[in-house]
Amino acid sequence: MRPQSKVRITIKGRIIGGPRPLICLPLMAGDRTALMEQAATIASLKPDMIEWRADAFDRVTDTASAGQALRTLHARCQALPLIFTCRAAAEGGRQALAPETRLALYQMAIRSGQVDLIDIELSSGDATIQTLRPMCRSAGVKLVLSYHNFDLTPGRDVLRRKLQQAEKAGADIAQIAVMAQDGHDVLTLLQAAWEARSRYLTIPLIAIAMGAQGAITRIAGGQFGSDITFARGLKSSAPGQPGIEALRMAWSLLPWQNEPSA
Amino acid sequence: MRPQSKVRITIKGRIIGGPRPLICLPLMAGDRTALMEQAATIASLKPDMIEWRADAFDRVTDTASAGQALRTLHARCQALPLIFTCRAAAEGGRQALAPETRLALYQMAIRSGQVDLIDIELSSGDATIQTLRPMCRSAGVKLVLSYHNFDLTPGRDVLRRKLQQAEKAGADIAQIAVMAQDGHDVLTLLQAAWEARSRYLTIPLIAIAMGAQGAITRIAGGQFGSDITFARGLKSSAPGQPGIEALRMAWSLLPWQNEPSA
Repeated sequence: MRPQSKVRITIKGRIIGGPRPLICLPLMAGDRTALMEQAATIASLKPDMIEWRADAFDRVTDTASAGQALRTLHARCQALPLIFTCRAAAEGGRQALAPETRLALYQMAIRSGQVDLIDIELSSGDATIQTLRPMCRSAGVKLVLSYHNFDLTPGRDVLRRKLQQAEKAGADIAQIAVMAQDGHDVLTLLQAAWEARSRYLTIPLIAIAMGAQGAITRIAGGQFGSDITFARGLKSSAPGQPGIEALRMAWSLLPWQNEPSA
Repeated sequence: MRPQSKVRITIKGRIIGGPRPLICLPLMAGDRTALMEQAATIASLKPDMIEWRADAFDRVTDTASAGQALRTLHARCQALPLIFTCRAAAEGGRQALAPETRLALYQMAIRSGQVDLIDIELSSGDATIQTLRPMCRSAGVKLVLSYHNFDLTPGRDVLRRKLQQAEKAGADIAQIAVMAQDGHDVLTLLQAAWEARSRYLTIPLIAIAMGAQGAITRIAGGQFGSDITFARGLKSSAPGQPGIEALRMAWSLLPWQNEPSA
């Protein structure tokens, strides 16, 4: 009832690119106490996966401190697939970090054995991506390569190029997240997702239109090929995220309502 | 936050084509007792408008009996705008009726002073439409001209022609309802709605993709220019209608959530 991915990824029993889109809840915490509180609440909301947005963590430049927080988080949520993300400020990150600091954090995360996926921007550049790509492969960590635009929705040709670039660079999952100003932007994003899934992309896809106008893509994107949607547990990590309970209610109206969850 | 219609229609305080799409609940009853039971339940669900699908009424060929049912319904629900529809069997109607029988029913409804709108298929032909059009105008009844396809979603050019044909024939509201088989069909319908609203249609619009795949258009169509959505009160009148409570929950996630209801 929804278009599945040619290549599917199964992590801890969840199928990315399978019969049902997955719900990911982001954790946006300034310190370890807040992180643990959020983790406890979020686990009770039973998402399919969680994402630690390390760029929201005050002491993230202290790699040892970040590593300790990651260990505690992993111990608390080990039944759930965990995405490690340290978002660049230019693409929505909460603090400006030097490229080498971010690279060191990603390397720490991959080596920790505690994360299942990492998400890094395509704009990080070939050198960074080609450093992380083999590390991910040997550690069994999946690589999400992403493109964000918080200002506008580029044309469908730009979105196609970004997704093709992600697959070519060795992504396990390709992601686009763009700001929608109106219904036309929403349709551009959904068409880009549908075209990617039906014509050229073999890997799983995350396609999101941000902002109030884009909220519908977080609900219904799965029908057009998007495999993961980010919902709000406690704090949102990007504009337009629905609360997880309202999202599930809306999903009861959509075609994958009766599909198995994993 | 949603694209409004150039021409708006206000009936009993509800704005068709205004800041918020309206929710219409259809009544599909075989006899007067069932009709009254449905009317009571439906009024308690507080829709913006109701539609009497007269083609579901067993004794509809007896114009006097249909007129009596209409009077009772009107007395029960006079605070709500009422659409009178006797759908042709070829476009989803529940019984086959001779064209002259349907014409007589529509004439009875317009003359009754008890209906606010009538909905008739474009395929009824020019003669029928041009008979009803002036009657509607002098009685203050709004005319919905509609196109249904229960098999498939035609291309965007066909949908454009149907909407232009409706406006040209003197419709106050133009309607298209097509069966969606996949996400591509859904996008075709939503694009047709967006294009109509932003480029050429001056009157309010109803645009629906039917079936499980199309359910999302019943939730989010308002964002792309559709002004009325049909929900399920007790019985659905077409495939894919959401329950009104679930629809309202889903709407809490969408951009017109804070718009005034009238």
